[in-house]
Amino acid sequence: MRIAIDAMGGDNAPDLIVRGAVEAAQEWPDTELLLVGDQSRIESLLDGRKLPNVTVCHAPDVIGPDEEPVKAVRRKKDSSMVIAGRLVKEKQADCMLSAGNTGALMTTGLLVVGRLNGIERPALAPILPTMDDVGVLSLDLGANMDAKPEHLLQYAIMGSVYRSKVHGIDKPRVGLLNVGTEARKGNELTKAAYDLLEEAPIHFIGNVEARDVLVRNCDVLICDGFAGNVMLKAMEGTANTVFSALKESFASTWMTKVAAAIMMPKLRQLKKKMDYTEHGGAPLLGLDGLIMKCHGSSDVKAVKNAVRQARIAVQVKLVQSIAAEINGK
Amino acid sequence: MRIAIDAMGGDNAPDLIVRGAVEAAQEWPDTELLLVGDQSRIESLLDGRKLPNVTVCHAPDVIGPDEEPVKAVRRKKDSSMVIAGRLVKEKQADCMLSAGNTGALMTTGLLVVGRLNGIERPALAPILPTMDDVGVLSLDLGANMDAKPEHLLQYAIMGSVYRSKVHGIDKPRVGLLNVGTEARKGNELTKAAYDLLEEAPIHFIGNVEARDVLVRNCDVLICDGFAGNVMLKAMEGTANTVFSALKESFASTWMTKVAAAIMMPKLRQLKKKMDYTEHGGAPLLGLDGLIMKCHGSSDVKAVKNAVRQARIAVQVKLVQSIAAEINGK
Repeated sequence: MRIAIDAMGGDNAPDLIVRGAVEAAQEWPDTELLLVGDQSRIESLLDGRKLPNVTVCHAPDVIGPDEEPVKAVRRKKDSSMVIAGRLVKEKQADCMLSAGNTGALMTTGLLVVGRLNGIERPALAPILPTMDDVGVLSLDLGANMDAKPEHLLQYAIMGSVYRSKVHGIDKPRVGLLNVGTEARKGNELTKAAYDLLEEAPIHFIGNVEARDVLVRNCDVLICDGFAGNVMLKAMEGTANTVFSALKESFASTWMTKVAAAIMMPKLRQLKKKMDYTEHGGAPLLGLDGLIMKCHGSSDVKAVKNAVRQARIAVQVKLVQSIAAEINGK
Repeated sequence: MRIAIDAMGGDNAPDLIVRGAVEAAQEWPDTELLLVGDQSRIESLLDGRKLPNVTVCHAPDVIGPDEEPVKAVRRKKDSSMVIAGRLVKEKQADCMLSAGNTGALMTTGLLVVGRLNGIERPALAPILPTMDDVGVLSLDLGANMDAKPEHLLQYAIMGSVYRSKVHGIDKPRVGLLNVGTEARKGNELTKAAYDLLEEAPIHFIGNVEARDVLVRNCDVLICDGFAGNVMLKAMEGTANTVFSALKESFASTWMTKVAAAIMMPKLRQLKKKMDYTEHGGAPLLGLDGLIMKCHGSSDVKAVKNAVRQARIAVQVKLVQSIAAEINGK
């Protein structure tokens, strides 16, 4: 198995990306890692170490975090991200990972790797943290703004296959984000999507509400990118606001300062548990090849975790499984 | 000034509604209150007290909390809610208040009181709590699911007039709920609405994100009912989850129990601050008459507060002011 890693994408690139790749290469000797990026910088980071399953692929260019995605992917054909995508397209790699510009990675998926036959719109599927630490695979949380009912149906099938094949969840519960749990609730989009989801080859549990997501009311959450992103940011904002208010309360008297000293470890733990960016990579589903998005802030551990997920996805033939479900074979 | 009160609507009706009305009548002797509902029950609650500014209007019927709104309003013409609406329509009352079925109250507004000339869709505008206790007037949070850009424009104008006239905020900042603060962000709806809001006679501050609403990033928040409701429920759910997790942490050892004893009052205060249902009534804007929705759980204080708001709205000629702004006069 071969996995291409965009060594130049992300806040900590190339240093921590390369270090993460080295750890992954040591842990999984059966997996060949292709480090795509500035050859001399990567080699200096490898510091003379020769690992039999690590190869450097030189890429002279890099796509920056603020570049306009489509323009960047079209123009920077020799960027680390686009070259990694090309390796997947040309079957020289089974999967690619990147912690770089999310929009550019989506575009690389669309323009370089290409959509899977039968898929109208690929989707990024991050894990939303839940209190039980299992998380909810959510698509879409903001990659595509407007969605049609058919897109939500495809998200549901893809998410369900990923959750069962890669995460090993038997009959993953698929929920539709809505304003109430009753069947006829919602806007035109969710009403139409509901009918499609009921007929789909998935374990559809009906409408779910944003207030219950943190207690994992489903395994796969389906929503359009706008509503999903609003939900995500409302959660983030509320958690941050509560933690700030608590911090202020803790600082008010010497008694509360004592309480703070006792409670701080628990609070930090809780804050971390709810931090969306702490929770691994996200697959880009619906492409004719595998792409995993790692968080921009990915560190050594995050890169290694992403390789772990990528290996499973390759092993279980994720792309072929999704193709089979989508095309009803 | 005359205000009609649906004495039979809400979880605590008629008892606390009547008691709240009595306190309001004593506080504002210039305001005549028409208590609409079961005459004998209301009179027994008044317990022989004769207040010169309280009149009982008998209504033999009641619309229940779970009744289908349109059907209920059409069929129950002698319900307390519909009769109160008719008093507004026939100019026998300047405003009506109800803590009853929200959908039925919206329908009463549309079918009994009627829309204001030039308004396509009336909206319920509740106050979303913020950390500074001022709150954000938000429309729509779920009354109308799908919205067109023109609806959002009308929400913005109505919300802005309400905030400045009734709450006395000079140049209220109007924000559009979106997935980013940059101008070209969002879905088709918000992109089109953005352009309309820029041209509107309001203080439009651009796109705002759900994560900043709790720190009051605007005075009037504009969104479609689906996204608004998802945001509201994500906030509620997150706050509740954090508080539950804290409670659990507090119970874990004797040390944390000591910390809990110290922190509990602050926590309760914070929880209350964030409780959406604690924050007064919501006007139904865009009707040819005034309707205020009180929360289902309204108590004596909530009813009195709603009367206070209603008095101001009548005094500042809210309906006429909205009509003038909408029709550009």
